[in-house]
Amino acid sequence: MWKPDRNSTDPLYQQIANDLEQRISYGEFPPGSLLPSERKLAEQLGVNRSTVVLAYSELRALGIIESRSGSGTRVSSSKWGATPKHTPNWHRYAKGGSFLPNPPFLRRIREALAQDPNLIDFASGELASDLVPVQEMNALMSQNPSMTYFGYVNPQGYGPLRQALVRYLAQYRGIHTTESSILITSGSQQSLYLITQCLLSPGDAVAIEDPSYCYSLPMFQSAGLRLFRLPVDERGVQPEDIRSLYKKHRIKMIFINPNFQNPTGTLMDQERRAQLLNTASELGLPIVEDDPYSLTAYQCEPPAPLKSADTLGSVLYIGSFSKMAASGLRVGWMVAPNSVVERLADARQQMDFGLSVVPQSLAGQFLASSYFAPHLDRLRMNLLYKRDLLIEALRKELQDLVEFHVPEGGHHLWCRIVPEVNDSKLLEASIQNGVIVAPGSVYGSTTGYVRFTFARARAEDIPIGISKFAQALGATIK
Amino acid sequence: MWKPDRNSTDPLYQQIANDLEQRISYGEFPPGSLLPSERKLAEQLGVNRSTVVLAYSELRALGIIESRSGSGTRVSSSKWGATPKHTPNWHRYAKGGSFLPNPPFLRRIREALAQDPNLIDFASGELASDLVPVQEMNALMSQNPSMTYFGYVNPQGYGPLRQALVRYLAQYRGIHTTESSILITSGSQQSLYLITQCLLSPGDAVAIEDPSYCYSLPMFQSAGLRLFRLPVDERGVQPEDIRSLYKKHRIKMIFINPNFQNPTGTLMDQERRAQLLNTASELGLPIVEDDPYSLTAYQCEPPAPLKSADTLGSVLYIGSFSKMAASGLRVGWMVAPNSVVERLADARQQMDFGLSVVPQSLAGQFLASSYFAPHLDRLRMNLLYKRDLLIEALRKELQDLVEFHVPEGGHHLWCRIVPEVNDSKLLEASIQNGVIVAPGSVYGSTTGYVRFTFARARAEDIPIGISKFAQALGATIK
Repeated sequence: MWKPDRNSTDPLYQQIANDLEQRISYGEFPPGSLLPSERKLAEQLGVNRSTVVLAYSELRALGIIESRSGSGTRVSSSKWGATPKHTPNWHRYAKGGSFLPNPPFLRRIREALAQDPNLIDFASGELASDLVPVQEMNALMSQNPSMTYFGYVNPQGYGPLRQALVRYLAQYRGIHTTESSILITSGSQQSLYLITQCLLSPGDAVAIEDPSYCYSLPMFQSAGLRLFRLPVDERGVQPEDIRSLYKKHRIKMIFINPNFQNPTGTLMDQERRAQLLNTASELGLPIVEDDPYSLTAYQCEPPAPLKSADTLGSVLYIGSFSKMAASGLRVGWMVAPNSVVERLADARQQMDFGLSVVPQSLAGQFLASSYFAPHLDRLRMNLLYKRDLLIEALRKELQDLVEFHVPEGGHHLWCRIVPEVNDSKLLEASIQNGVIVAPGSVYGSTTGYVRFTFARARAEDIPIGISKFAQALGATIK
Repeated sequence: MWKPDRNSTDPLYQQIANDLEQRISYGEFPPGSLLPSERKLAEQLGVNRSTVVLAYSELRALGIIESRSGSGTRVSSSKWGATPKHTPNWHRYAKGGSFLPNPPFLRRIREALAQDPNLIDFASGELASDLVPVQEMNALMSQNPSMTYFGYVNPQGYGPLRQALVRYLAQYRGIHTTESSILITSGSQQSLYLITQCLLSPGDAVAIEDPSYCYSLPMFQSAGLRLFRLPVDERGVQPEDIRSLYKKHRIKMIFINPNFQNPTGTLMDQERRAQLLNTASELGLPIVEDDPYSLTAYQCEPPAPLKSADTLGSVLYIGSFSKMAASGLRVGWMVAPNSVVERLADARQQMDFGLSVVPQSLAGQFLASSYFAPHLDRLRMNLLYKRDLLIEALRKELQDLVEFHVPEGGHHLWCRIVPEVNDSKLLEASIQNGVIVAPGSVYGSTTGYVRFTFARARAEDIPIGISKFAQALGATIK
């Protein structure tokens, strides 16, 4: 006999109501038939009577069952009549669909931040508001209120922004391309989404870094892809792993973030880059290169992307404003062969009909303006300062309890927690203590890690936050 | 034996190259083996030799085959060696994926408009640029360059916009709701996309109007839904059709555009509205109400939406700025039960991480500004003027060749072409003559119709456009 699942995030009464509704709709309980008494059903299912009472009241509200005192609870007999009207079972609809919900940790983090805006935030992969060029954006909007067009734009994106990106990519990323090879997307997220939806089919195998960007994991799973992991060490992923995955699983694509990887902060080394490109082109395998962090390189020249050495055209290159300027613009871009750009642009018309022209225009103006280079300088200096504050605090508060490599760019520090610790307990204890971090398990298979994002929190809060985290860790491992 | 498909949009040489690549990868031609000579293969496939020459050169470029003079063409023997490197077969990737491309007519229309900006455009479902409140938007941007936030917004959408919408919906649409029941989307298109992806599963049956909005049709098909049609007559759809579809096919949702329907311009009558809501609530069936056109009602009060009479909460309500202000803002909204809003907002994080805050802020300011009501007045007067120009021109140029109902709101006139005519030929002849229309078959099962959008073309071009269309029609039916 069916029993409710006590580990589910759905409340027991809801599970019971859903099960009964299904059995009724399958005709197991025909219209007019008597349902078990609340007490009896509670015994059968091993739950409290009050749980069944609640489940029945839910079904009564939906018009599916009727209770009359003295004659028990029955399936509504007049489903086709005029009388009983009911709301669609929205709960059931919301649980349906092929799209997987985000993992509980991500939703818990979002919820905790919404409930308590004073939490010191080491979890959100985003710039602090004082690192966003707010004044510059406002100046561009008020100086140049010259938008003459507010209509649908070209499915590939707004022309002037694509032209500005051609110049930006040549100057800052060593990528020489043309307007027709650029697709504007809603951040890197949409580039990844379009690739998984339109170039791959359910059941296809792909290789991703382990650990890797948390918001892409559920998306890959929603697309029905089989994920194979490429472990990231301090020099990046190992190209030989790709060859063996190809032989074993016929992987069809590689997703990689070689510069200041999220979450590890790793910079892939030169030798492995060359091997990676070689291997991919020997196998005819496409590489998707996500490159959001390069221009944050604190003290060195921004590392070149794989794409700049991609003579054979194996690389789909993804960039974005989110991590180097303003996530709220939602402007990202992909550089890809024309056939791919056209396909994705066409599909995207069905999804959202393209990105708003206003942020596209603003992003294009910002890239071409004299504000851009000074903004990057200021950003890099600030990130370096915050990184050092974080490291100082970690060394002071958690000396022997943590291990990490020092990142040379990006927003994140990937930190091993030496004592064994339960991710979920650590997260809750942190929230309780007024600080929030991203548990390592959100990023893939690894446990015993935490990602500290130092870009988001205010500088003055970083030592306080780590002190609070140290208390939470202490309480958790005790 | 396989033969290339001469009706395919793919060139013959590409089909041949793809077929050979597949056969090679399946081992039909093992590494090192000899392929048929160009002449022989051309004979077998019934194509010109030059077509095979081109197919072979494609495969050589991909490193899959090698030709040496005197020894013919062979499958590359060293696929695993170091020497032959090749580009991924992007063409194959672009053809893969579960997402269906848009139908050829839609792509043809887009392409023709991109190639010749002087075409008189009766095809694009969009306002003319002089009907878009460009000055008002620019004034809001330069008067209030007060954006202090450029970060990620709440997954449901920017708070101030949702607050402005609560007031707008009460005042203009008779819908009383709360901020937490509103989801901001990239136009109506994304609302529809989220519903089909997240609340329905492949194989589910849904009911849609026939004819209906062309950009939603491929989207429904991409989601693997089974579509059942509700014929639209001059009073809208017939509610009894829904009951019989439910009995026969267990439809799980109804999609409807009751006010100035796209493409027919129909206003659903009061009696049928009441019946529709009754039927839906008796069956516990959700209705998705798309309501982009109501506020364009030329001479009457804007008709109330179904949602305003939806006491049981059966209706997911969708609205948008696109048809009443500026499509390029890409701001739309959905009013839905909390469980649905939360589910869709969560899934959307995986797709695009939400809409840019800039157009959301602008849209909220515009709704709350003193610009909004006068803009609507001006819009309605202009649309009425253009509708009358179109009707006058149709009566003058095509008197007995066309039949139509006069729409009282919206952007479109749905027009039956009395003589029998091939949609594709009529479209091409129109383009040739400098005018473009949307063939009726794009909207579903109906042929012998044309949708004229009078919102898009300049007023002075409307008579000229119809005169050109009349010539094209004359040439097509001759």
